Amino acid sequence: LDRLGTVAIIGVGLIGGSIGLALRARGLAQTVVGIGRDLDRLSEAKERGILDVISISVEAGVANADVVVVCTPPARIAEDCLQAAQFGPQSLLVTDAGSTKARIVARVEADPRGRSSFVAAHPIAGSERKGSAAARSNLFENQTCVLTPTNQTPVDRLDRARSFWKSLGCRILETDPKSHDAALAFTSHLPHAVAAALAGTVPEEMLSMCGGAYRDGTRVAGSDPQLWTEIFLENRGPMITALAAFESHLNQFRNALETDDADSILQWWSQAKAVRAKFDQNSL
Amino acid sequence: LDRLGTVAIIGVGLIGGSIGLALRARGLAQTVVGIGRDLDRLSEAKERGILDVISISVEAGVANADVVVVCTPPARIAEDCLQAAQFGPQSLLVTDAGSTKARIVARVEADPRGRSSFVAAHPIAGSERKGSAAARSNLFENQTCVLTPTNQTPVDRLDRARSFWKSLGCRILETDPKSHDAALAFTSHLPHAVAAALAGTVPEEMLSMCGGAYRDGTRVAGSDPQLWTEIFLENRGPMITALAAFESHLNQFRNALETDDADSILQWWSQAKAVRAKFDQNSL
Repeated sequence: LDRLGTVAIIGVGLIGGSIGLALRARGLAQTVVGIGRDLDRLSEAKERGILDVISISVEAGVANADVVVVCTPPARIAEDCLQAAQFGPQSLLVTDAGSTKARIVARVEADPRGRSSFVAAHPIAGSERKGSAAARSNLFENQTCVLTPTNQTPVDRLDRARSFWKSLGCRILETDPKSHDAALAFTSHLPHAVAAALAGTVPEEMLSMCGGAYRDGTRVAGSDPQLWTEIFLENRGPMITALAAFESHLNQFRNALETDDADSILQWWSQAKAVRAKFDQNSL
Repeated sequence: LDRLGTVAIIGVGLIGGSIGLALRARGLAQTVVGIGRDLDRLSEAKERGILDVISISVEAGVANADVVVVCTPPARIAEDCLQAAQFGPQSLLVTDAGSTKARIVARVEADPRGRSSFVAAHPIAGSERKGSAAARSNLFENQTCVLTPTNQTPVDRLDRARSFWKSLGCRILETDPKSHDAALAFTSHLPHAVAAALAGTVPEEMLSMCGGAYRDGTRVAGSDPQLWTEIFLENRGPMITALAAFESHLNQFRNALETDDADSILQWWSQAKAVRAKFDQNSL
C-alpha cells in the first residue's frame, strides 16, 4: 500500500475522529485535514492528535485531497459528498461512513461529478458515545466495512476504497445499497430501537434491581437521540419490516407464556440461542 | 463478622460454585459442603477449589451446617429448602438464590420447620454461562442481593442472612416477595426475553453485518433454555405485565416511525436515554 498524500475528513466526531487517529497511528497519510463547522471543536480534535490541518471550508479543505471521507450526520452526507466532489481534484475518491446507503447513493449518483468519484461505505463500528473525545485509533480493527458499489461506480475508485478501508483495519463486505439497508435494519437499527424501548420501559424506582441483562441490553440507548432519529427516518421502510418481524417473534413468546406452554418457550429460546452461537462463531 | 463453621451449598453450578469460591477466597467458613445429584460434577467442582466436602445426600450434607444456600433451578428450590430445614440442625439458616420469590416463599413458609429457618434471597448476579466451570469468586462483589422477608421470618435468621450475603460482597435490598417478582419481571426477566427475541429475529445470513448493539443486546440469549423457561413460567403473571408495557412502549416508536414523526422519535429516544443515564449514576 502506497502512503496517501492528503486525506480530508468532513465531520470530526466519534467516527471521523477515529479515522483520523487510525490514519496517523498507522502512518497511512502525509496530511490529515479535518473539516467542520465549529472551529473550537476542530481545534480540540487537532490538540488530541487526530488532525494535522483544520478548515471550516469544504472548498479549501478538499482542494489537495486524494481521499475525502464524509462522516457527518445521515441527513447531510449526500450534500457533503457532492460538495467534496465539486471542489476536489479530478482524481479524488469520495467515500462516507453513513449507516444507511440507498438514498445517499441515489442522490450522489444523480450528479455526474458525484458518481465519478464516490464509493459508498459503512464501517460497522461505533459506540453510544459521541464527539472526537471518544475517538479511538483501533475502532475499526476487525470490524466489518460494507461497500455498496453500483454499476455506476468507477472500478478504480472501488479498488481505492477497498484499500482505504482495509488499511484502517476493516474486513470488507460488498453488496448493493438496498440490500445493505434491508440488512442493517435488522442487524443494527432494530437492536438500537429495542434497546431504547427496553430502557424506557423499566420504571425508574426499579433501577436498583437491574442486572447485567438490562445493562448490556440497553447500553446503546445512551446514543445520540438526533443521530438515531435521522437514521430511523432515513431507513424507514426496511426498519418497519424489521420491527414487524421482531414483534411477531416476541408474540410467539407471549402466546407460549400466556398458555403456560413450556415446550414452546424452550424451543423458542433454543432457536435464539443457536443463532446467537453462530454470531459468536463468525466473530472469532 | 464471626467465621462460619459449615456452609452447605445445594446445587453447585455458576451461582452455587461462585458462592463456594467467595466463601473460600474470603475465608468466611471452616468447611464448604457441596450437595448435588451428580458425583462427577461435584468432584470437578471440588478439584476447582470450590468445595471442601461433597455429598449426594441432602440429609448427610446439611447435618452439621450453620447455613444452607439452595442454588438449584427454580422449580426445585422450595423442595430443597424444605429438605434442608428438615434434616439440618435447629439453629440452621436456610437461604436461596432463586430469581423469583413469591411461590417459593409461600411453599417454604407453609411448613413450620421451613418458615423457622428460611430467609429468601436473590443475588442479582450471573451470566449467560452455566456450570461450576464458569464460577468466579468475585461474582457478587457490588451486586445487589434482594432479601424478601415476611412477617413470618424470624428476626435472628434475617440478621444472619443479611450478614451472610453482605460477606460475599453484596449490597442488600429488602422488599416483600410479590414486589420483588413484579420488579424483577421488568429488570431481569423482560430483558432476557427481549434479548432472545432479538437474537431469534435476525436472519442468519445477515449475522456478518451485526455490530455492537446486536452483540450486547443479545448476549444473554446464550443462557440456558431450561432455566429460563422455568423462570418465565414461575413468574408468569408479572412477566405478562412487563411484556405488555414493553410492547406498548415499542408501539409508540413504531407509530412515530410510520407517521414520519421526527419530534416524537426524538422525544421517545431522549426519555429512554435519560432513564439509562440514571441507571449508570446508580451503578457508580
